[in-house]
Amino acid sequence: MMEMALQQAEAAAKRGEVPVGAVLVHGPSGRVLASAGNRVEELKDATAHAEMLVLRAGAGTAEYRLSDCDLYVSLEPCPMCAAAISLARIRRLYFGAYDPKSGGVEHGARIFEQPTCHHRPEVVGGIEEARAASLLRDFFAARR
Amino acid sequence: MMEMALQQAEAAAKRGEVPVGAVLVHGPSGRVLASAGNRVEELKDATAHAEMLVLRAGAGTAEYRLSDCDLYVSLEPCPMCAAAISLARIRRLYFGAYDPKSGGVEHGARIFEQPTCHHRPEVVGGIEEARAASLLRDFFAARR
Repeated sequence: MMEMALQQAEAAAKRGEVPVGAVLVHGPSGRVLASAGNRVEELKDATAHAEMLVLRAGAGTAEYRLSDCDLYVSLEPCPMCAAAISLARIRRLYFGAYDPKSGGVEHGARIFEQPTCHHRPEVVGGIEEARAASLLRDFFAARR
Repeated sequence: MMEMALQQAEAAAKRGEVPVGAVLVHGPSGRVLASAGNRVEELKDATAHAEMLVLRAGAGTAEYRLSDCDLYVSLEPCPMCAAAISLARIRRLYFGAYDPKSGGVEHGARIFEQPTCHHRPEVVGGIEEARAASLLRDFFAARR
């Protein structure tokens, strides 16, 4: 599943978007409910992160409760996305590269560690970290 | 403008939504770009907070930069919405009632105070606080 998230990230880079991809999976069945890359530039919407797009798409599938779903993201979610993951009651969060600059899970606001956080997913970070990180590095290097 | 946000909150309550309303205003012209109440129940989308809906609607109006815009919300934004407000580079945030349980501006994650927060709007809280708070209190009392 992280492979699919990384492919979405690569596709996002080709569209000129910051290369982050996300996949929403129904845990028990392993069915992919939604996958997306960043669409911030395309939609001119600073909130159109890959995670928000798949959470919203998943919310529309009445058959599945998001509390049975897992989210795979190529990069540590920012505080907006981390808080959205909590609100949606996602079961497990798997992410790739750590993001000391803008992450909100292991850095900064550490959303899931707040006493006011009402749902904490299980979190596994650093999956295929090197590949996820080099995608981002290459993207920003090419822009300079 | 807070009056309009409160009206959106009242309308949300009538639809069975947690009564929170938001209005996005282009600061220099005073033009209202978008207004909305919560649509979490209607869309079965835990991320469909009033603030997210108006930010997204505002992002679609190519004429206006959100960095020239102010946001009025009847309740202290949660961490998701506060982080979205930062990403969207909103100029000023005006909110009504404080939310010690789930707020993310003056409580919990205190999004704008994080060193990893890259844009901090001006914040004015407590506007028409009593009315905004009583709306919420009445709503939850009626549900019990």
